[in-house]
Formats: sequence, structure tokens, C-alpha cells
Amino acid sequence: MFKFETVSREGKARAGKLTTPHGIVNTPAFLPVGTQASVKALSSEDLKDIGCQIVLGSTYHLYLRPGVDVIQKMGGLHQFMNWDGPMLTDSGGFQVFSLGFGVEHGVGKMVPLFGGEMVLGEMLDTEVTALARRTKLAKVEEEGPTFQSHLDGTSHFFPPEKSIEAQVKIGADLIVALDELTSPLHDYNYTKVSLERTNRWEKRSLKFFKSHKDHKVNRQEIFGVVQGGPFEDLRIGSAKFVSDNDFFGVAVGGALVNNETMLKILDWIYPELDPQKPRHLLGIGTVPEIFAGVERGMDMFDAVVPTRLGRMGHILIKVMGCETKEKGREEGMKNVWRVYNKQRYAYDITKEVFAMDPAPLDPHCSCYTCTHYTRAYVHHLFRARELLAYRLASVHNVQFVVDLMREIREAIAAKRFAKLKENWVQYSE
Amino acid sequence: MFKFETVSREGKARAGKLTTPHGIVNTPAFLPVGTQASVKALSSEDLKDIGCQIVLGSTYHLYLRPGVDVIQKMGGLHQFMNWDGPMLTDSGGFQVFSLGFGVEHGVGKMVPLFGGEMVLGEMLDTEVTALARRTKLAKVEEEGPTFQSHLDGTSHFFPPEKSIEAQVKIGADLIVALDELTSPLHDYNYTKVSLERTNRWEKRSLKFFKSHKDHKVNRQEIFGVVQGGPFEDLRIGSAKFVSDNDFFGVAVGGALVNNETMLKILDWIYPELDPQKPRHLLGIGTVPEIFAGVERGMDMFDAVVPTRLGRMGHILIKVMGCETKEKGREEGMKNVWRVYNKQRYAYDITKEVFAMDPAPLDPHCSCYTCTHYTRAYVHHLFRARELLAYRLASVHNVQFVVDLMREIREAIAAKRFAKLKENWVQYSE
Repeated sequence: MFKFETVSREGKARAGKLTTPHGIVNTPAFLPVGTQASVKALSSEDLKDIGCQIVLGSTYHLYLRPGVDVIQKMGGLHQFMNWDGPMLTDSGGFQVFSLGFGVEHGVGKMVPLFGGEMVLGEMLDTEVTALARRTKLAKVEEEGPTFQSHLDGTSHFFPPEKSIEAQVKIGADLIVALDELTSPLHDYNYTKVSLERTNRWEKRSLKFFKSHKDHKVNRQEIFGVVQGGPFEDLRIGSAKFVSDNDFFGVAVGGALVNNETMLKILDWIYPELDPQKPRHLLGIGTVPEIFAGVERGMDMFDAVVPTRLGRMGHILIKVMGCETKEKGREEGMKNVWRVYNKQRYAYDITKEVFAMDPAPLDPHCSCYTCTHYTRAYVHHLFRARELLAYRLASVHNVQFVVDLMREIREAIAAKRFAKLKENWVQYSE
Repeated sequence: MFKFETVSREGKARAGKLTTPHGIVNTPAFLPVGTQASVKALSSEDLKDIGCQIVLGSTYHLYLRPGVDVIQKMGGLHQFMNWDGPMLTDSGGFQVFSLGFGVEHGVGKMVPLFGGEMVLGEMLDTEVTALARRTKLAKVEEEGPTFQSHLDGTSHFFPPEKSIEAQVKIGADLIVALDELTSPLHDYNYTKVSLERTNRWEKRSLKFFKSHKDHKVNRQEIFGVVQGGPFEDLRIGSAKFVSDNDFFGVAVGGALVNNETMLKILDWIYPELDPQKPRHLLGIGTVPEIFAGVERGMDMFDAVVPTRLGRMGHILIKVMGCETKEKGREEGMKNVWRVYNKQRYAYDITKEVFAMDPAPLDPHCSCYTCTHYTRAYVHHLFRARELLAYRLASVHNVQFVVDLMREIREAIAAKRFAKLKENWVQYSE
């Protein structure tokens, strides 16, 4: 029922076909993040209309609310959120880290929010307080991590077996072994100790999963995780470990290192990765990162970036490469060019310049928003804080990334991925 | 291009057909309120899928943001919000009142919000402050009212001619003459003086509209408004005035009086109303009010009730009448019955009892939400404050009222409206 095949390649980049009990995923693929059983502001039907093939759920969040028993009793996450396509859940490791060293070291998930732009409904009071006080809300011991819920402060012991049990009950096609993330502020010694513990956790995850009664029906498969911070020998060792053990796929963690380091890590581990196994780069999803990941053999990506940017009014669009700066001045692109953020591949629709702009968000896009509404209207909805704004912008941004992945797959098949990459990232690098 | 015909009747109740340049409205009809060019949380396509035939826009809100010039330049409100069906705009009179005596007397639009449940994004700081201080933000003089924007405090002189000019530019099929609302705390003398002024404003509205160059193309028609507070002779006089003048339709204002008084008013004015003209009961939209209005010859209703209740998690449903209290205990209704609010015809989906309820919001409903999602899921979305919650609940609640109106029309055609009413309102009255 599970299968991964490479259908074409160009250098390390490869296009593949991942078969799951809920359907096929063409890779390289992007997974929108449905943290709380909902890709924020979108319905499952919106995602289908966009052409999205696979969605990610967050075990930490679902475990706390509504609880895995609720999801299991409602027939599993597929049925609960009415998504009948493939699905992957993460292990909860990233959130445990965010509550622990993430808070203490001031890195990770909560920091960009705390310091930067606030996003509707994402930052909770308890998180703000913890961050302000730098009080760790999680600790890590050999048996497993213990964290405090960001919702009500209750304490939860969350060993690998509990993460896997939760993921089995949630019922996504693909699940992930529990790991410990390390912070960029951790030294070599801590990272090494942590990685060795992560390996033991991953083995326990694997063992528990393989012996789980529900596994026998072959409805789920498990990914191991590569950690090891920014240290070459640790990363290589970790990649070997995951390749050598009976994991269906490989997830690469540690998205918190800087971009340059992430590229080095992907180069280091590439020779160690089993070419038979699909590879997921966790928590990564900007345009340059996706290109860099695909170029280094990655097959799957997930990130909240497109939907979070959407809710802030940042509209993803390409006005570079195939359209030169001159061509970018074509009718319908003038205003975009004026306020374009090249690093983000986005423009801010809330800017005054769009108040009377009759063009769709992106004249080259075929998404629901672009085929039904104007920039002027979406601009107004954001200014008036109408709820429809968040949906329309999120629809477009997810469509943008889903379309990008299709373009990448077609380019690899035609051996012109390198050209496509050059075309997309020449201005931003 | 404009026509109103009665197609069947039962007592004073009547089913009709209202023809506009953008299509036909079967009456009695309910108009969801798109205050700021968006029916909150819904897209125009959502409204079409629901079977909604006509939408209301708020001139006051659109005048302030995005501004009527923006809407006109974007092709009018139909094109701006991608709604190609019939549309009505109100005059702004109700909002001017809310900012004026509404604040001073502590009645009207803002009060239930201020004192009661807060609704996402509806209450603004300036409004709260004004209400707390009881500082009027509008004054009324013979030439016209002047109000302060709730957005930025700027002062706006808003005579009848300006309201009509705005409504012509906005471009709804049906527009409304400018009136002054009175508060239930106003005495006979003030109400009489106010009504006489309202009559002069309505004449000015009509004159300005009829002489407006854009009117000649016959793309809009105008409603007069019946005011006069709770006073019989004033209401009768006002109804005569509107009937005798060349208004296409009659709007009945003053939704702030209590229900009992409103019924009396409708009884008083009925003999004076021109049967050729469609009749809109402004700002009214609960189930008992709709039945009472239809019973007294009203053809159109508008209210934010269904969408506002939806955003608070209150799900409209009928568990009375055709289903007896016993039958209400059928599978799928048990939980609803336990927490049912008979006055509201609604239950609160955020209650714990729905955490694992696998039924749709209403097992008898065919809306998008009920055919795709469970109560457990919608409950979770509200608990987790996911944006999708507001859309799913609003879709259902608007569908509920649109379906109710269809049922009412069919009942009138079959001469069983009285029976239908009894069936619906026996428990709540």
C-alpha cells in the first residue's frame, strides 16, 4: 500500500511518486500545515480545489485539543477534518523544543511572532508570558520529554511511545519518530548527547510502531528524523542511523539553523541517504529554500509560511526571472513592482497603492481568488478586517506554492530544473 | 426592468416576485447583510451556493470605507464584491441614529454588543469610548445630519442628497431614502417633529434621485421609509406619505421598538400600504419576527442575526413544531435538545456535549457545512478559534433562513402559511 518511486532526476534533484492508502503524492511536494486539524482559514474543499495532494497535522496541538481520543472516536483525522487524501503528522518534538530551549534561548517558533508581526490568533498569553520571562515550559530526560501545555499549563510526560500512540490514533498515512531538536546556541557536546538520546528515542518509536496492533493493517508508515545541529559528523551519523533502520522515510529536522548551514547539512548527508526512501525537509517552505532543498535531493516540504503570510496580507507572486524587471512593468504588475519584497516573493496588499487596482492578486494565477476578485476588493477586506480577507489571501498563497511544486516536477522531468531555479532565484540570492 | 407582482396570498401574507436588472427575488425574502461589501465570513459564491437571491449593503460603512468613489471606479458594488444578483443599500440613517441618540439614550446597535457578548471584529475602540461616555457622535438639523466617523472621528455632513448620490454611485438595484430614526425614549413631540423632517428628507431624496442623470437608464429604484416611533397617528401618516409619493417600495423602520409595538405598528399601517409596492421590514430577522412580519404583509427582511449568531457559535435549528419534543429526542437531536435556546432557535456548538457528536450541525439541513462536517469538528474549530469555524457556522445559519423563506413562500402558495407559523412558533411565543 506504501511505495516510493523516483520517476525522473536531474543531478540530485528528483521527481517521484509516493503511494499511500489515501492516494498518490507527486514529489517534490508541499504540505500545507493544518496545525489544529485545519489549514488556517481554509476548508478541506478549498485545498482540493487548489490541487493540494497532502496535508500536515500537528500531533502536539491535536493531542492537547481536541485530544487524540476524540479524533479516534470521530474516525481518525481524515474523517474528522473531511480530508480523504494523504496526510502526515509530525511527532510533537518541534513544539516540545519550542516550549523548552526555544523559550530559554529565545529561538524558534515563538520568537518571530513575539518580536515581529503579530498574526491573528496565533500567539497565546501563556506563550507571551513564558517568553518574556524566559521560563522553560519543557524539560528533556532519558525516558522522554515533559512539557507544560500552552493552553492550560498542565504537565504532560510525552515519551516516544506516547507520541507514536497518539499518531497511530490520529491515523495520518505518514507519521514521524520522536526526536529532540537542539538550539543553535547548544554546543557540540550537548548536541552530541542529545543526538544519541534522539537515536534511542527513534529506535523506541520504531519498535513501538512496528509492534503496534494497528500497524499490521499497513495503514501507516513512519519517518525517522535526522538531527545533529550544525555539526558535520553528527549530521552524517544521524543520516546513516535513519538510513540503516527500518524507517519508510527520512525527515530532516533542525530548521532553526541559518540557511547557509542548512544547505551545508543537506550536502553532508546526501551520500548517506537511502535513495529508496522519500525525504521530508521539516518546517521549510520559502521559495529559495524549496529550490535549495530540491536541488539537494529533498522530496517533501511543509511550512506555515504561505498561510501565515496570507493572513498578514502578504501576497505571493513571481515578478522576476521569466519576467524581467522591464516586463514586470506590464499592465497589472506596475503596482506590485513598486512594493515588491524580493526576499519574500510577496507584496503587501494592504498598501494604499492597491485601493483601486482592478487586477487580480496575480494576473498569471488561476486560483479561486484570482479568478473571482480584484486587488482593490482584497485590499478593502484587509483594511476593514473582514474575515473573508484571510481566506482569499490564503487560497492564493497555497495555490502559489502548489503551482510552484508542479512547475518544479515538470522541470525535473524535462531536465531543466537548474534553469528553472536560476530563473526563479536570480534576483533574490 | 423593475416590477413587483403578487403571485399568491393568504390573509395579509403574500408571496411575490420582484424583478430587478440583476435578476428576480422571490418574496418573502431574507437579505443577508454585507455591511462592508462582504457578508461576514462568506464569499459571494458561498451565498450563491446557499441559494440567496439578494444581499444588503450598508451605505454608511461603504461611504467611509472604501469610499463610494472607489466602489464606483471598480464598476459598482456588484462588480466590486463579485455579486451579480440583486442588491439593496440602506440610506445610512440607522447608523447616523446609532451614533447620535443611540449613544445618548443607550439604545440600538451598539448596546447589545457593549453589554453582552462581544462579536469578532465588530466593536471598535472609538465606539466603546463614545458609548461609555454617552457622547453623541451625530447631530440632526433641518438640512441634514452630521456625524463623526466611528473609524477616525472625522466629521461628515450627510444630507439626503449625499446619501442618494452615494447610493447611486454604489449602484445597488434598490436604494432607500434618508430618514431619521427616533429612539424609544423620545416623546410624542420630538417624534412628530422628527417625522415631519423625515418626510421633507424623503421628498428631497426622491427628487434628487428622480432628477439624477444615472436614474434615467432605469438601473435603480428607491424605497421610502415609514417612521413615527410607537405612535399610531404618526405611523399611519408616515405610511400614507410613502404610499402617496412616487417610491417604488416601502421600507418600515424603527426596529428598536419592542416586538409587541412592532406588531401593532404593522397592523396600524397595513391599510395605508399600496399593495403594488414591495415592503421591506428593516433590520428584522429572527424566526418569530419573520413570521409576524409576513403575517402582516411584509415582503423583505434583513438582519445581521444569522451571521452574528454564527460567529458566536450559535447554530440555528428547528426542533419544535413538526418535530415534537418527543421526536426532538431522535438520534442526532438529543444533544441539541439538551442545550436548545427556544427563543433564539439555536444551540451553542461550543458546549462540551458536542465534543464527540458525529452528527451534522442539523441532520435535516443540506448546506455545505452540514453535508461535509460534523458537530464535533465545528465544536473543535470554535474551541481552537480557527477561522474556518466562523465560515462554516455562517454558511449554515444563512442557509437556515434562506430555507425558511422558501418554506414560507411555498406555504403561502398552498394556503397553509397559518399552519406553518403555528408549527414554527408554538413553543417560542
